[in-house]
Amino acid sequence: MATITGLDVIDVRFPTSRTLDGSDAMNPDPDYSAAYAVLRTDDGVDGHALTFTIGRGNDLQAAAIALLEPWVVGREVEELTADLGGLARRLVRDSQVRWLGPEKGVVHMAAGAVINAAWDLAARRAGLPVWQFLARMSPEQLVDLVDFRYLTDALTRDEALDLLRAAAPGRAERERALLEDGYPAYTTTPGWLGYTDERLERLSIEAVEDGFTQIKLKVGLDLAEDRRRLAIARRAIGEDVGLAIDANQRWEVAEAIDWVRALAEFRPAWIEEPINPDDVLGHATLRRAVAPVPVATGEHLHNRVMAKQLLQAGAVDVLQLDATRVAGVNENVAILLLAAKFGVPVCPHAGGVGLCEMVQHLAMFDSVAVSGTTEGRMIEFVDHLHEHFEVPVEVSGGRYLAPRAPGLGARIHAESLAAHTYPTGPVWATRD
Amino acid sequence: MATITGLDVIDVRFPTSRTLDGSDAMNPDPDYSAAYAVLRTDDGVDGHALTFTIGRGNDLQAAAIALLEPWVVGREVEELTADLGGLARRLVRDSQVRWLGPEKGVVHMAAGAVINAAWDLAARRAGLPVWQFLARMSPEQLVDLVDFRYLTDALTRDEALDLLRAAAPGRAERERALLEDGYPAYTTTPGWLGYTDERLERLSIEAVEDGFTQIKLKVGLDLAEDRRRLAIARRAIGEDVGLAIDANQRWEVAEAIDWVRALAEFRPAWIEEPINPDDVLGHATLRRAVAPVPVATGEHLHNRVMAKQLLQAGAVDVLQLDATRVAGVNENVAILLLAAKFGVPVCPHAGGVGLCEMVQHLAMFDSVAVSGTTEGRMIEFVDHLHEHFEVPVEVSGGRYLAPRAPGLGARIHAESLAAHTYPTGPVWATRD
Repeated sequence: MATITGLDVIDVRFPTSRTLDGSDAMNPDPDYSAAYAVLRTDDGVDGHALTFTIGRGNDLQAAAIALLEPWVVGREVEELTADLGGLARRLVRDSQVRWLGPEKGVVHMAAGAVINAAWDLAARRAGLPVWQFLARMSPEQLVDLVDFRYLTDALTRDEALDLLRAAAPGRAERERALLEDGYPAYTTTPGWLGYTDERLERLSIEAVEDGFTQIKLKVGLDLAEDRRRLAIARRAIGEDVGLAIDANQRWEVAEAIDWVRALAEFRPAWIEEPINPDDVLGHATLRRAVAPVPVATGEHLHNRVMAKQLLQAGAVDVLQLDATRVAGVNENVAILLLAAKFGVPVCPHAGGVGLCEMVQHLAMFDSVAVSGTTEGRMIEFVDHLHEHFEVPVEVSGGRYLAPRAPGLGARIHAESLAAHTYPTGPVWATRD
Repeated sequence: MATITGLDVIDVRFPTSRTLDGSDAMNPDPDYSAAYAVLRTDDGVDGHALTFTIGRGNDLQAAAIALLEPWVVGREVEELTADLGGLARRLVRDSQVRWLGPEKGVVHMAAGAVINAAWDLAARRAGLPVWQFLARMSPEQLVDLVDFRYLTDALTRDEALDLLRAAAPGRAERERALLEDGYPAYTTTPGWLGYTDERLERLSIEAVEDGFTQIKLKVGLDLAEDRRRLAIARRAIGEDVGLAIDANQRWEVAEAIDWVRALAEFRPAWIEEPINPDDVLGHATLRRAVAPVPVATGEHLHNRVMAKQLLQAGAVDVLQLDATRVAGVNENVAILLLAAKFGVPVCPHAGGVGLCEMVQHLAMFDSVAVSGTTEGRMIEFVDHLHEHFEVPVEVSGGRYLAPRAPGLGARIHAESLAAHTYPTGPVWATRD
């Protein structure tokens, strides 16, 4: 019987602001960072996860994760992994810590890191990647993962069960298809705001050559610039490739309506994060006004209650969950079930560090056991920082290849952790 | 020319869980706490504020405040206090730190603490309590305080100016009236869930004898219990005193509808925090279903975008702002303006430590310069922990007496700070 012996947390930061990888209209100089959590055990099979942040405050996120230590250290691994739903509820409902959200921000993401580390631990012990580990659970086991508190006006446990049972036939076949053909991807690599026109054009052409059927551009700082850059990109990719745009919360509601209409001729695949991410009603207004341009949001959606409302209000065409913004795999299972109930496709956010590695499990699980399809769905791909991961994502021909290694995929190489530990690692200690 | 020389942060906790003061359906054993911030200056006139939390994690909140030091330390006091709107916008828009919310939770409350400390500093230098300091600003100065980003679909700067100009006549008279008669209060002292029936009855009778025209009871754990306790309270206070109830986020939407209907015979003055505080659409549904019982929420409203939506959706009869949940006085001025635009009364939340002392300034400013009335409005009063404050609230005859001491009111006695510092102060070091 193995026991959890420790919860280690490391402040890891990559100096991405030096090259403007990741720059957008709201975040001009991010240093992609990870508050990195390790659930240590006395038999050596441990669990790793991370919360993605963009620099300063990553130490605060790490401290928030450490605060949750009493919920896991000293517990038996079998007891913990046999009831991951119970673990998630305990972590989220810790009343004194919950007050600091509630169920949002630093403490909620911290719960997510611990929950995700427990998933890595459980899936590794089962010898399965998390997507398969989830996709082979029974509908009853899956609904036990979900905290239906505050959801029942939109989705009850029984409705979720019905949904999962309806998707049960064909699971094995869809799993085989995933293993053979992978899952559709789109790429954000060409479109960061800090890039030159030449780089934008070259990367757009390369994306199409690499087999991507959709690329994404950051917009929102200057309309004339956006029109110019969209024209370059549209010319580079041709008429048949999707061209999504992402404003990273830059606009007011009325401004978003005008701006999107002024970009409509470039036929955006969607407009992403047009306005404040909390603004459910604003998204609903915008969606009606800019149709047929689809509206997408979700990377900053802070919990399942906000996801519920976006869906209830008919505010989005595409829901973009994030692996580390909410309370881990469990809350994302809830979000996938909500989206399936409302018939809205989920296309996960993955611009960050480790996000591609993690969200692929959620999307693939969805396609096998929840929505039961990849139709109208794709996972974001950004091609940097993967070299730091023990099992980096494999994207080929514009598709994510289904991961076969056990676990959640967030494990960073020990050397990379050491090199990028903030502020003592060599990458930071030698910064001019 | 004075300069900000330091931002000190102290983790202060009061062991309220030992007596169950403050217990409710979601928070069974809070230790009322303050992440206490001091803006030090080289001329000795400093600024104090705090973020209210309920125990564990107060150290995290303190660390979040300390993270904002670079925005204030080394700055000239005059420059800072001459543009408190600019300070608030810089603190909230720090892109790397903002990512950790965005604009919610620990980092947003941290911005609020620094902003509020700057208000204490500015008002003390002006020799005025914050409510008067605000109430004597011109409409132009007041709108400069507000970040209208994400609000313009509901309230523009020009509309806010019109509102404030319309309320300008009569300011001096309303200020005099406040100084003479104070502001209406209601008391939550009788109604904590952990109290015995005898204590509930005795405190309810005392509240009416003390001149309160409304009391509030915690509900939501057990319907039969709630009916019994409400009957005791209603009998104790008679038919003419208001009896508000507070479920502290305990219910699902459908459950809230049934429960409130089952308590309607006790004629609740309002049902407070019936469901999850993020659930704008749920509150709108509930409000329609339980009318004429009014719906109140707001103490966990994490920013102005959520306030905007509650008002746009017609989801509340009473908006309950909190002094430390949002980004300080500035965001609360935005919330007061939004509420005035929609004609919804604001009745601040004050169950905590230091909240009564701070929110009275916001409500009194509102009555002088924004809504221009105290009609249908009252401030929560809970009678404990005031002895720790340099200038404790004065409530008499069921009314808050207008504070005359300069500043925001959050200053805790040095001896109280020392005694309750966690975990080294004597109150904690001697805990069995």
